[in-house]
Amino acid sequence: MRDRSYLAGLFGQGIGPSLSPELHEREGRRQGLRYVYRTVELDDAQLAPDRLRELLAHAVELGFDGLNVTHPVKQVMTPLVDDLSPGAAAIGAINTVVIRDGTTTGHNTDVTGFAAAMRDGLPGADLGEVVLVGAGGAGTAVAHALADLGAGALHVVDTDAARAERLVRSLGPGLAGRSTTATPDRLGTVLARATGVVNATPVGMAAHPGTPVAAELLSDRVWVADIVYRPLVTQLVRLATERGCRVLTGAGMAVNQAADSFELFTDRPAHRAAMVTDFDELVADEIGRTGGSP
Amino acid sequence: MRDRSYLAGLFGQGIGPSLSPELHEREGRRQGLRYVYRTVELDDAQLAPDRLRELLAHAVELGFDGLNVTHPVKQVMTPLVDDLSPGAAAIGAINTVVIRDGTTTGHNTDVTGFAAAMRDGLPGADLGEVVLVGAGGAGTAVAHALADLGAGALHVVDTDAARAERLVRSLGPGLAGRSTTATPDRLGTVLARATGVVNATPVGMAAHPGTPVAAELLSDRVWVADIVYRPLVTQLVRLATERGCRVLTGAGMAVNQAADSFELFTDRPAHRAAMVTDFDELVADEIGRTGGSP
Repeated sequence: MRDRSYLAGLFGQGIGPSLSPELHEREGRRQGLRYVYRTVELDDAQLAPDRLRELLAHAVELGFDGLNVTHPVKQVMTPLVDDLSPGAAAIGAINTVVIRDGTTTGHNTDVTGFAAAMRDGLPGADLGEVVLVGAGGAGTAVAHALADLGAGALHVVDTDAARAERLVRSLGPGLAGRSTTATPDRLGTVLARATGVVNATPVGMAAHPGTPVAAELLSDRVWVADIVYRPLVTQLVRLATERGCRVLTGAGMAVNQAADSFELFTDRPAHRAAMVTDFDELVADEIGRTGGSP
Repeated sequence: MRDRSYLAGLFGQGIGPSLSPELHEREGRRQGLRYVYRTVELDDAQLAPDRLRELLAHAVELGFDGLNVTHPVKQVMTPLVDDLSPGAAAIGAINTVVIRDGTTTGHNTDVTGFAAAMRDGLPGADLGEVVLVGAGGAGTAVAHALADLGAGALHVVDTDAARAERLVRSLGPGLAGRSTTATPDRLGTVLARATGVVNATPVGMAAHPGTPVAAELLSDRVWVADIVYRPLVTQLVRLATERGCRVLTGAGMAVNQAADSFELFTDRPAHRAAMVTDFDELVADEIGRTGGSP
């Protein structure tokens, strides 16, 4: 007779525009659940591990069932949880904390979400030789997702060669041994033998206009995935579509990481197709309100 | 396009069986709101003012819109909020904290809830000479509600004469001047000229069987209100009904304090009649599950 309810939240900075509350709460409602998702904007002092540990303890105490954590605390939160999923341990970063009976377990649904997006949005894509542009936090999640999907080789392109090297080494001996790194000036060479390319840099966002891969380097032999979703149709997505490439927009990763977190919080399957529709509507509404993005 | 959601909670001890989460969440759903209500069971160390202040600060930080507070922290929480409603200040106890833009305001919906219950459940009741049995926290709330309703005189009956005296003095010079105190052995005398009687002791609860007013002292000249609601039909309510008295069960105060808190949290009118139906159903269900109460 008494229904249980669900309480989730998001810790991070600059999260005012996050679509997560709306995506989670709409999915909760669709499933007939009592579901509330709160954003907790961290100030700089709260980025200290001791403060984050305290905040996490209070979220547990006040009845949260789960949390998402985002920039800039995905790494610093990792040692603060009681347990880690194997995937989160491998990558050393979490974006999801499941709280059950006072115990916290860290997960990384950026990894599982990108993998799900690839499976759903680019089924059968040839993962033999994948070029990954960007070796930061998002690039690391994408790389581990591609590894989980059985990628043959990764070619990691970043202006910071050491960072790219570290990412390749983190993949484990098998895939790391077949993978390479390069700086952006060598993108043409790297792409020549690629089966697909993923943008994991901010280039293409409204605040970072442009494309991480020049138009002339794209051919319909490669599939193209972008993780940028504001706007949904980035310059890269538009160019790739024009060239006849199979394309995955940033909506795929964004929605699937939210869906994976929802499933971890509730132990119920998410309606992913409906969440994509919600996401598209929310992004369109956002563009309508802000007068459009480049 | 984005709906707001509501997050409320309850601080106290022994609150596992509280009906508040279900009453609030059902009313939220009825109004089409995203509404979650969490109980926070306090351990003894958390009863210290410093710990409560910290817990309140974290509830603010984690996005709560409001809190109920109950035994044993209604008094100790009172100085911890930023502001007090006049009613809460008068009584020196709060059961509700409204959180708006980081500011906390304490209210007492036990007072307003009992007043609403009297207006709804015993309209036109003669408040000329009211006997109040029990001068503890609940009795104090009832007394102030009766004062707000314009009671002519209160006769406060308690085994602790000093406590009864303090309660009468807290009512302000006008009503205090017309009010009296007595110990339970004098209940017959006090009731002889009464227009109504309120039980604000735990007597009648499953754990405290019995009646605070003997059957032979009741006549249909007096109305009878009980604040005990587990069970809904207490021995007092049953006897008073048999004697032909107008009767208000404990459901009235319980539901109306919840409805008043809901309205403070959401700024929306509650559907009180529907909440009464929910309440009756929940109590009946509880009795069904526990195999009945005396």
